[in-house]
Amino acid sequence: MSLPRIAIDAMGGDEGVRTMISGAALARRDHDRFHFLLVGDRARIERALEAHPNMREASEILHCEDVVGGDEKPTQALRRAKTTSMGLAIQAVKDGRAGAAVSSGNTGALMAMSKLALRTMPGIDRPALAALLPTLGEDDVVMLDLGANTDCDARNLVQFAIMGAAYSRIVTGRQAPRVRLLNIGTEETKGTDQLQVAAAQLRAATGLDMSFEGYVEADKINRGDCDVVVSDGFSGNIALKAIEGSARFVTDLLKTAFRSSLRSKIGFLISRPATELLRHHLDPNNHNGAVFLGLNGVVVKSHGSANAAGVANAVAVTARLLEESLTERILADLAELGEARLRETRGGVPAK
Amino acid sequence: MSLPRIAIDAMGGDEGVRTMISGAALARRDHDRFHFLLVGDRARIERALEAHPNMREASEILHCEDVVGGDEKPTQALRRAKTTSMGLAIQAVKDGRAGAAVSSGNTGALMAMSKLALRTMPGIDRPALAALLPTLGEDDVVMLDLGANTDCDARNLVQFAIMGAAYSRIVTGRQAPRVRLLNIGTEETKGTDQLQVAAAQLRAATGLDMSFEGYVEADKINRGDCDVVVSDGFSGNIALKAIEGSARFVTDLLKTAFRSSLRSKIGFLISRPATELLRHHLDPNNHNGAVFLGLNGVVVKSHGSANAAGVANAVAVTARLLEESLTERILADLAELGEARLRETRGGVPAK
Repeated sequence: MSLPRIAIDAMGGDEGVRTMISGAALARRDHDRFHFLLVGDRARIERALEAHPNMREASEILHCEDVVGGDEKPTQALRRAKTTSMGLAIQAVKDGRAGAAVSSGNTGALMAMSKLALRTMPGIDRPALAALLPTLGEDDVVMLDLGANTDCDARNLVQFAIMGAAYSRIVTGRQAPRVRLLNIGTEETKGTDQLQVAAAQLRAATGLDMSFEGYVEADKINRGDCDVVVSDGFSGNIALKAIEGSARFVTDLLKTAFRSSLRSKIGFLISRPATELLRHHLDPNNHNGAVFLGLNGVVVKSHGSANAAGVANAVAVTARLLEESLTERILADLAELGEARLRETRGGVPAK
Repeated sequence: MSLPRIAIDAMGGDEGVRTMISGAALARRDHDRFHFLLVGDRARIERALEAHPNMREASEILHCEDVVGGDEKPTQALRRAKTTSMGLAIQAVKDGRAGAAVSSGNTGALMAMSKLALRTMPGIDRPALAALLPTLGEDDVVMLDLGANTDCDARNLVQFAIMGAAYSRIVTGRQAPRVRLLNIGTEETKGTDQLQVAAAQLRAATGLDMSFEGYVEADKINRGDCDVVVSDGFSGNIALKAIEGSARFVTDLLKTAFRSSLRSKIGFLISRPATELLRHHLDPNNHNGAVFLGLNGVVVKSHGSANAAGVANAVAVTARLLEESLTERILADLAELGEARLRETRGGVPAK
């Protein structure tokens, strides 16, 4: 099967061109059907390509010099959609010259540009940022929204649940992924009005390809008994970062502990294969690649600090979403649910 | 120095009377000036006391049979404030028969009963639940609110900052604790309106015994460069539980890794003293004891699943707050700031 081309914003990320190209090359080593549209400064891209002969015949370069700054406001960046590497990568998806775009740049700008160029799907009010997190179970858990929408109403949350379930079906192969809303307790009366209305609607909904199982607290996200965790972008971002920070905290403590005596140093050396496995499992690069769900096209955000292996992971995620036709699946789910039914629920959403 | 008595709700918690009494006894082993008012079923308390002769002369029993249920709604529990062990322990603080109360029972009920009986301090609209979390630095970080208030406005957040700083001064000895608001980014424009207004007010405030340093993201909470993290109760609860869950996730993975081969098992045995240290550091029992700040009296929540060591820690936290006159300190800070000035800020709070 031939795979649509992936547009790479080669200028984003803390390390820039070299890391993005190395990452794409690394991904292509495993999947030689990957093809790329590399967007950015031609001279720098060509220099970076010298180290990766396998990329030459698989890539076209789209030259541009302008770059979206890491601290730039989305509204400001939007004005330069036609000249920046990020904007042009997204535009390529819109024009059909690429099937998806990957960028390590400014998240807010990427969201704003993607929304403006690709528009949200019919039936979706706002896109959401979704990522896969490791669990103690066999499958990763899909978390969304991770920061695209600070405030969300019940209608947004219900739409996120539908999109998250579609993503999870691809990842886990489950027909009816287990979906939960992130809350501060599991009793029906817990949390905000928006959460309670969303839960009531999901409980009452029929014909959705998911098993809605109520609320989940933040300490149970990675237990492996839940496939999709839905939240507003503020709570989701807090939870995601708290999880990342805490994992780093524990591994930092562990390092200090192992260094605390000669005995523990020796023990560490002996058990190294085990701790290496742990390191691999926790390395954020191996979970890199967050997806904007709900757009007419696939846009993937790679972490600004990702290394080449991280970028390769984001590219692999992108390819998988293309292969499995994520966008079409969500559209089909929404159609099944019926635009009419979704509109109906609007009445139940509490006014802000 | 003689310390006011501590009222113990002996009936709360997953394990009930035995754990609460053992915990109090354990705390008293280190500090024989602790005295207790043990509230609950006399026969069961006396049976539990048999194992702890050091508790006999230090304790008075206040008999009652009624208990607040773990799943009971706060409004329901409130009606039984005069007959339940939780209600009577709080009432003892109000009547001056105890200086503080400790309970492992239903958090919502404890909050509602405490608020009704003890009332909030002048200048404080709502109490907040605060706890100490371990960091990579020398001192613990104070986090609040951890779930007492799902929705908070800017005025609440400013008050939480003042109360958290007072608590941190006791814990860290710093004259001006470093205070930050929990947010999803550090730029001034990030987050909700409430956060932005609260940040502006804290930045503009003079005469506060704190160094307000802007926003903190959830992955930086335990880095040790921040003494107080302020949030609404929803975000705070999400962050706290995500941190706990992630720490457990990593240690579970570590266990699996160490068990994965004979070699790693041997390495584990050799480095055991190091991993034991880590275990001790991460054991939630060693950080047990969350405080309701902002009441006319000290009420401490012990975790429902805490063991005797955990309860002992909560009792020690309670004693320290009494010794250091937390309530009086917060009152003094509020007076310094001036009720008038706090009222003034109300104008800046966005309408919900």
